[in-house]
Amino acid sequence: MAKRDADGVDLTVGSARMGSLEGFVLERVLLDAPDKKALFLLGRFKDITGEENGKRAIVILAKRHFETETSKVEQLSQTALQSIFTNDIYSKYGGTPPPSLNEINVDIICPCTDKHIAKYSKQETFIVRETPELYALVTLPYILSLPATTIQWVYNILEKKKEVERLLYEDPDAAQGFMLHPDLKWDQKQASELYCLAICHNRDLRSVRDLRQEHLPLLENIKTKSCQFILDKYGIMQDKLRIYLHYQPSYYHLHVHFTHVDLFGAGQNVGKAILLEDVINNLAIDPDYYLKSTLSYTLGSEMDLYKAMQSHL
Amino acid sequence: MAKRDADGVDLTVGSARMGSLEGFVLERVLLDAPDKKALFLLGRFKDITGEENGKRAIVILAKRHFETETSKVEQLSQTALQSIFTNDIYSKYGGTPPPSLNEINVDIICPCTDKHIAKYSKQETFIVRETPELYALVTLPYILSLPATTIQWVYNILEKKKEVERLLYEDPDAAQGFMLHPDLKWDQKQASELYCLAICHNRDLRSVRDLRQEHLPLLENIKTKSCQFILDKYGIMQDKLRIYLHYQPSYYHLHVHFTHVDLFGAGQNVGKAILLEDVINNLAIDPDYYLKSTLSYTLGSEMDLYKAMQSHL
Repeated sequence: MAKRDADGVDLTVGSARMGSLEGFVLERVLLDAPDKKALFLLGRFKDITGEENGKRAIVILAKRHFETETSKVEQLSQTALQSIFTNDIYSKYGGTPPPSLNEINVDIICPCTDKHIAKYSKQETFIVRETPELYALVTLPYILSLPATTIQWVYNILEKKKEVERLLYEDPDAAQGFMLHPDLKWDQKQASELYCLAICHNRDLRSVRDLRQEHLPLLENIKTKSCQFILDKYGIMQDKLRIYLHYQPSYYHLHVHFTHVDLFGAGQNVGKAILLEDVINNLAIDPDYYLKSTLSYTLGSEMDLYKAMQSHL
Repeated sequence: MAKRDADGVDLTVGSARMGSLEGFVLERVLLDAPDKKALFLLGRFKDITGEENGKRAIVILAKRHFETETSKVEQLSQTALQSIFTNDIYSKYGGTPPPSLNEINVDIICPCTDKHIAKYSKQETFIVRETPELYALVTLPYILSLPATTIQWVYNILEKKKEVERLLYEDPDAAQGFMLHPDLKWDQKQASELYCLAICHNRDLRSVRDLRQEHLPLLENIKTKSCQFILDKYGIMQDKLRIYLHYQPSYYHLHVHFTHVDLFGAGQNVGKAILLEDVINNLAIDPDYYLKSTLSYTLGSEMDLYKAMQSHL
């Protein structure tokens, strides 16, 4: 029979409340996520007889942000301090706040499946230095090996077979034209979260690697007309926009990201994003900048391109 | 007379250790940073007579990531749980871990200046296009106008007057040498959160703008020796490190950031961070790349440099 608390609620894990994590026996850390200050743990809950062969579970522990109500912030002055170091006017401590102000979030999936385990397991990230030689040897053959169907959805957009109702702006010129769409991640509710994508009509440009000085008019055209449209429609000035390309991109048809400068995410990190202004600057400095350059970027260990590169790194 | 603890250590804020935040009287929250799970507070420390007209201070509270040593993770099963909701196999709780496993980081700047307050206050962010002309007209005069005292703490480190116990590695060569320190944001508990700073001995290099092809040996030296040290000491390979400079930097003495590739933050965004590999690539493509280039970056509206630029943008 299941254990029940005073209110008669079943205390069996997975169907009701628990008083503590004490019955959890760690098998391994699935994922260590310092960016979220979170740990994803795999283990088992002891069953009610105390045996360890209970249900398999994922326990997600995450530090909570501070509460910002003034009364709560004031109570934080009860934090005990332990000195780490002092230099001039700067000092650093380990702090122990009152426990009630320092709760964490605990999410439990119990029982969990192999699919849950795969979803939350670590995929390692590596920084890759792509010389022009490595591009020719591995990256370009990889891109050319992708089935045409992987890019069909882009052509459907450009041919107005799909997502026509989402089209924000179009310059139909075959060489310098493009379409501007809201990115799927933007719900279009707040201009301060603006995220648009400009997709060029030219189908020969796979990525920033293919850009030469002759493409400066295309890039300037995308920048100028998209910024003008965004100003007219959303009232956001160009100096509030982070405009960038991804290398590696998630699909190999040249497109440019426009995001509000206050929007943050891993997709804006150096080693993934390249400012359109920098691309324009680089092509002005050297017409063959992207033919000659070593480009460094992050790749996940499970990505096919990373696997293809492994024997050459 | 200054208050002292049992060991005779001066407890006056700004010159030594404190036992708790209790003397801190909140004036206002300067910045609420949910992405870092951090609060930046402005207030005053009561002086030893208990009066509230003590020194003005900035107190930065930041949740720490969990420690990932197995024994520490296992101890987290002592976390008390309070149910928030349950739905099928998914359940959510507020958790209270043992306080020793749930310390926060506390940084204190005391006394603080108006400049510190501006630096940590919420402000609008803009993207600035710095042409070589704008650099000569505004940025360089701004840098040269900064009082020598603002960089004194860097010289204290380089002259081994301060933070000697934090020195990780040094190449003492005057032209190509540097010192490697853990960044203040890294508590050195976990290699997966590694954040080190290489500060060069050359005092003529203010930022990436001053770099020319002749500095390639310095940059290669910093990269090679720091990566070797980090591999030897922390077991982290070079392809797990994001190595970058900031432009604009927070102080104008050339330094290079080394962070674990899994560590995320606004300081790694394009428009602020520039990969060291890209700097090396750019100087190889054109010896005067940083003399000729238009550099685009984000600036806060309250920063003196942004104010100085306003009439020229």
